Amino acid sequence: MRKPGRHFLQIPGPSTVPDRVLRAIDFQTMDHRSPEFGELGLRTLEGMKTIFGTTGDVIIYPASGTGAWEAALVNTLSPGDRVLMCETGQFAWLWQRLAKRLGLEPEIIETDWRQAADVAGIEARLRADTAHEIKAVCVVHNETSTGCTSDIAAVRAAITAAGHPALLMVDTISSLGSVEYRHDDWGVDVTVGGSQKGLMLPPGLSFNAVSEKAKAASEEARLPKSFWDWGEMIAANKTGYFPYTPATNMLYGLVEALDMLHEEGLEAVYARHKRHGAATRLAVETWGLEVLCRVPEHVSPVLTAVMVPEGHSADGLRRIIHTELNMSLGNGLGRLQDRVFRIGHLGDFNDLTLLGALSGIEIGLSRAGIPHNRGGVQAAIDYLTARPDEQLVHRAA
Amino acid sequence: MRKPGRHFLQIPGPSTVPDRVLRAIDFQTMDHRSPEFGELGLRTLEGMKTIFGTTGDVIIYPASGTGAWEAALVNTLSPGDRVLMCETGQFAWLWQRLAKRLGLEPEIIETDWRQAADVAGIEARLRADTAHEIKAVCVVHNETSTGCTSDIAAVRAAITAAGHPALLMVDTISSLGSVEYRHDDWGVDVTVGGSQKGLMLPPGLSFNAVSEKAKAASEEARLPKSFWDWGEMIAANKTGYFPYTPATNMLYGLVEALDMLHEEGLEAVYARHKRHGAATRLAVETWGLEVLCRVPEHVSPVLTAVMVPEGHSADGLRRIIHTELNMSLGNGLGRLQDRVFRIGHLGDFNDLTLLGALSGIEIGLSRAGIPHNRGGVQAAIDYLTARPDEQLVHRAA
Amino acid sequence: MRKPGRHFLQIPGPSTVPDRVLRAIDFQTMDHRSPEFGELGLRTLEGMKTIFGTTGDVIIYPASGTGAWEAALVNTLSPGDRVLMCETGQFAWLWQRLAKRLGLEPEIIETDWRQAADVAGIEARLRADTAHEIKAVCVVHNETSTGCTSDIAAVRAAITAAGHPALLMVDTISSLGSVEYRHDDWGVDVTVGGSQKGLMLPPGLSFNAVSEKAKAASEEARLPKSFWDWGEMIAANKTGYFPYTPATNMLYGLVEALDMLHEEGLEAVYARHKRHGAATRLAVETWGLEVLCRVPEHVSPVLTAVMVPEGHSADGLRRIIHTELNMSLGNGLGRLQDRVFRIGHLGDFNDLTLLGALSGIEIGLSRAGIPHNRGGVQAAIDYLTARPDEQLVHRAA
Amino acid sequence: MRKPGRHFLQIPGPSTVPDRVLRAIDFQTMDHRSPEFGELGLRTLEGMKTIFGTTGDVIIYPASGTGAWEAALVNTLSPGDRVLMCETGQFAWLWQRLAKRLGLEPEIIETDWRQAADVAGIEARLRADTAHEIKAVCVVHNETSTGCTSDIAAVRAAITAAGHPALLMVDTISSLGSVEYRHDDWGVDVTVGGSQKGLMLPPGLSFNAVSEKAKAASEEARLPKSFWDWGEMIAANKTGYFPYTPATNMLYGLVEALDMLHEEGLEAVYARHKRHGAATRLAVETWGLEVLCRVPEHVSPVLTAVMVPEGHSADGLRRIIHTELNMSLGNGLGRLQDRVFRIGHLGDFNDLTLLGALSGIEIGLSRAGIPHNRGGVQAAIDYLTARPDEQLVHRAA
Repeated sequence: MRKPGRHFLQIPGPSTVPDRVLRAIDFQTMDHRSPEFGELGLRTLEGMKTIFGTTGDVIIYPASGTGAWEAALVNTLSPGDRVLMCETGQFAWLWQRLAKRLGLEPEIIETDWRQAADVAGIEARLRADTAHEIKAVCVVHNETSTGCTSDIAAVRAAITAAGHPALLMVDTISSLGSVEYRHDDWGVDVTVGGSQKGLMLPPGLSFNAVSEKAKAASEEARLPKSFWDWGEMIAANKTGYFPYTPATNMLYGLVEALDMLHEEGLEAVYARHKRHGAATRLAVETWGLEVLCRVPEHVSPVLTAVMVPEGHSADGLRRIIHTELNMSLGNGLGRLQDRVFRIGHLGDFNDLTLLGALSGIEIGLSRAGIPHNRGGVQAAIDYLTARPDEQLVHRAA
Repeated sequence: MRKPGRHFLQIPGPSTVPDRVLRAIDFQTMDHRSPEFGELGLRTLEGMKTIFGTTGDVIIYPASGTGAWEAALVNTLSPGDRVLMCETGQFAWLWQRLAKRLGLEPEIIETDWRQAADVAGIEARLRADTAHEIKAVCVVHNETSTGCTSDIAAVRAAITAAGHPALLMVDTISSLGSVEYRHDDWGVDVTVGGSQKGLMLPPGLSFNAVSEKAKAASEEARLPKSFWDWGEMIAANKTGYFPYTPATNMLYGLVEALDMLHEEGLEAVYARHKRHGAATRLAVETWGLEVLCRVPEHVSPVLTAVMVPEGHSADGLRRIIHTELNMSLGNGLGRLQDRVFRIGHLGDFNDLTLLGALSGIEIGLSRAGIPHNRGGVQAAIDYLTARPDEQLVHRAA
Repeated sequence: MRKPGRHFLQIPGPSTVPDRVLRAIDFQTMDHRSPEFGELGLRTLEGMKTIFGTTGDVIIYPASGTGAWEAALVNTLSPGDRVLMCETGQFAWLWQRLAKRLGLEPEIIETDWRQAADVAGIEARLRADTAHEIKAVCVVHNETSTGCTSDIAAVRAAITAAGHPALLMVDTISSLGSVEYRHDDWGVDVTVGGSQKGLMLPPGLSFNAVSEKAKAASEEARLPKSFWDWGEMIAANKTGYFPYTPATNMLYGLVEALDMLHEEGLEAVYARHKRHGAATRLAVETWGLEVLCRVPEHVSPVLTAVMVPEGHSADGLRRIIHTELNMSLGNGLGRLQDRVFRIGHLGDFNDLTLLGALSGIEIGLSRAGIPHNRGGVQAAIDYLTARPDEQLVHRAA
Repeated sequence: MRKPGRHFLQIPGPSTVPDRVLRAIDFQTMDHRSPEFGELGLRTLEGMKTIFGTTGDVIIYPASGTGAWEAALVNTLSPGDRVLMCETGQFAWLWQRLAKRLGLEPEIIETDWRQAADVAGIEARLRADTAHEIKAVCVVHNETSTGCTSDIAAVRAAITAAGHPALLMVDTISSLGSVEYRHDDWGVDVTVGGSQKGLMLPPGLSFNAVSEKAKAASEEARLPKSFWDWGEMIAANKTGYFPYTPATNMLYGLVEALDMLHEEGLEAVYARHKRHGAATRLAVETWGLEVLCRVPEHVSPVLTAVMVPEGHSADGLRRIIHTELNMSLGNGLGRLQDRVFRIGHLGDFNDLTLLGALSGIEIGLSRAGIPHNRGGVQAAIDYLTARPDEQLVHRAA
């Protein structure tokens, strides 16, 4: 049966694509070797630098985000290289598994999946690596499976403090365009991004932002590569073109998305996400449920993972909400399967949509028979009643 | 500054146009004299009959709703004809003014704009009209300015009881496709409809459903007409064509909208609107505000007009909500200017969007300094927690 | 069976709607009483003045073109008023019939439907009307049924020469935005326009441009009117709003269409249409067929009506071309039924699309067994080989 | 300056995306873990089998076509493996270079870039490889840089005749959906496809169709892989899902494109392309220019590469046509730079668009001062005057 009204797509990405972006994508494909295309290419390549916070090169792949993970590794590393990864959750674990499949030697710093990357642990491990066998440190900025955001500047400081030459690689797939990020200032060597979250596009584009040090590393790297190879990309990109067929229609959408982000202002975008994270957590706490992220400084502004009480099924709740209330929530991934549901509050999003989404969860909890207190939405309403500029954002999220 | 996220278009029409309808409208215009067009025309003409509840003729005008008001009158009446109208609110008043401008003699039965059409008054007046000078009774089914819905079957019964031959004309512009309507069963002679409310289209199409009696009247009617003339329309429509250029792209959207209404099922659509009306009124009452419609049996399922306390400005509230919260609410019209705001809950709409909208109003009331109790949204959540099929709809709306 | 590739919509309107316009129309409907709407309204109202060549008022109706014909008459005239019309073809005849239905007394100057308006005849008739019983002269600028374009400046000069006070009303439905037009300079009182030809929109908007003299007349005019009434329109339009629900999504498209016309430049747009008219006539002549318009100075730049030889069927030809070649051509209207086919070459159109269309006709003529010479397309190619700025436009079209 | 009318995108891909496909892509992104997505996934995966002509597995990558080249190799081969490739043109050469970069040992059978794959050469080389060092034979079905189509069934027969166990891999990026293809019947092990040519989508999806033998090989293959890995894909695809975020909106478009291909019928689609290839070559020959493909049996039905006379510039011609006539033609690639232009006649395409395109070339040749005979378009018109079902297709293309 048809479900009336707009679907609430409250997974932590893909986020709801705004009409302006969809309409842009809907234009006729153009010749990717035409003069007009060169202008489009340059505009997207330059624009992406403003989002990454870099003056260096940005690579745009006509591929979804997992590909950009692979690209970061194959361009900079050689078979058997040791990489230090921090298992903040399912996506960090998947990146590690991908590294292993490519023939690297990932070394994992585990967490309980309820906090951000272990900065002290990274520093300790690097200090111990006096032979500099570790070639790269890989961190997920915003762990989409848990709703914890890592402090990248602190990771960089730890590497520096350890006097270690490892490259720093950061996955920003679910944070880019939603959470403050400074590729250059934070000394990141490769930043990995995707289109379908803060950039408000459908999935199908992914990105690498690369430092000079990363480019130097790429000249020695011996992992095989061709589709992901930076060299030809950077060369062709100088005039706005690509060495093979780009995802032209997605680039149309990217131009529009970049305009939208700058019309609102990146600082305002970041503040908006923090505020929505705070409102969401207030609702969760009022319901008497537990936010998965247990370190207040680590809470994510783009999604909130919520634990369901023992004996209850998060997937059962999600099914009721999807079937009866026309809303999608994120599921628990890996070891969190059926134990958490995840609320995405990212991308092109606003107060009323958040409050509609939280209302749906409050109704869903009742219908699913999950014990909770009423009033979560009311708490969020009360919090959001203060105007953004009058508001002390709840916790340092 | 760009307002992020989806706009909440909670005016009582135009309602939010669903993506399926917008995409349909976005197709290339076709030759309106091609064989393919004939199929399209027949499909829309037949489809509209299911919405009006008629097996008779439906006219589709390439014009917005006000035109269909004019069409109803000029096709059936002659200069100086007396028409009995019930001033249920601003739109009834405007229809009356339009009648006067066309050279008719409208006679008004007044109300306090807080209730539906005065059925007893209509009957009394018709009984008094022993000379049958009154040629038509005109009633607005759902008065968009007040949120009161009139009982059309009762009006027909009153006319019959009075033994009066007047035509019955009904404006369903803001009810059609949202509130149960039965052109044939209720003995209506001309029903006037528009595209931009329950039909979920942009404005630009309007309709007349016409009884055999109305068609007979049209042969005697002497008001000048050409664009609005039924005769050529009905003749050309037999094969799916129109006597002058139709609004082809709107017809594409109409096909899609008709499919959507039938996929959900008209009964389900009507029940959904009632349920949302009830939830909205519960919120308003919890806030301690007054619903304009003061007769419980008359409350509209498609919109709720809310009175603001003396000394406060409804337009000030609407401005705050529009500017800061990205939602449009309906304004007070005519004598209600600045005294009420109107919440549209019609068309392609669902629980979560309603709760987001009510949340925005609750925040707006606080920001505007309008005295109210917290908890309106909570009341609506509690009400909507019962599944539609488990729910006793609140009041007979 | 699906017909592959793009349809060639070569009727003389609706013309092919460009993607930019369709995408604009595809955006969500907005509140027509919001501040943003006022900006949109002003932009379209001001923009339309540049197309009409006027600094006076332009009215935008949410209705297709036939309505604007009616509007021109009911706003300026009174029952029984005599209007002088020149029957240049089917549309002039229909306008005359519409006038009669509205209670006016149209007086027709006939033509053989193979030439433009009879300027000398108009002048003679006006001179004879010493009592000034004729209240308006109505001329179709570009007669869509015949492909003849009338000289409006000459008509104005004739009226002036006759010293006659009649209003001058001009139908530019199929010329506006394609053929040079100067409402103010040519002293026109009411110009009637539509959206679906040179303005490159779907059908659903129509226009009146009105002189001060026409506005003065409207204050005395006694034909009944309400939907079409200029008075409230002009009053509300001052701030960009409309007295009743406008066709909002069409206005989105109009903004885009106006931008497109000005990006190309109106002079370039007009020259492009002339050039395509000339190329088309060369093809027709090469085929050995006869162009319906028999006065070289009257040939239309927006369409070419072509006569088929006695004993052959224009509709049969059109059917073959539609079914087998995915192109729509205009049919013969009224007395020209089955005797001519009409080639539209207007709106968002270019050389290659014209040559594709002419190729389809040349193939169609063969398949239909209509005697003709090969080489029509070749003649058009040869003509278009000269660049626009190097070309002496063929005949004064 | 704005170029009026539709752009003629006559490069050999991306081809013009039909409105139905663009509108489908324009819908809101959905949750790729929702039940609805599973249905979408299955529909596209099953649908693609009908296009490849296989009952085996098809992999859909959220990446453009070059990625699917890489996928074919990394899933089946190990470092240092020898692959036999036939250099039919630039794309065959690029695939070979990609293989080399991935650590394989490609061995090239050269051609003069004016014919299809050298089947006899392949057979001879395989017969000589008694040690079976060659692990795969890679052939481009339709060489987009030259307009030559290879006989895949003959290549398979050659491998069989040689009694050689090598895998057969075929690139159908520019032929799939336009030229007859039978993955199973022709015994192909991996077929590589892309979205932006015969499938009528924008670039951004690519495909591998894989035989049981290829899947068996993938279990031994030691080239590193993760993004491209078949294993997890095939496992997740069983229920219609993907192991990482798919390009959801492109899949919407793929559903529509598959419907369109089957509505027309694959046989009709293939015949249409052959007919347009024949018409194009007739035009080229009439102009007195040379078709690059010099073997009549090898001419491509999807594109025609045309040589310009010595002393003239193909790119200069293309520039004039692009700037002045709003058409894109393909450029000469690699050693053919500036020596040829390529006419794409593939995808959603029809007679009239082809004739418009050829007309633009005839005009362009004149404007560029390239010596040629008039009449190429006339020759194509004459050829296309015969209805498809009455026509002996010119040469066995």
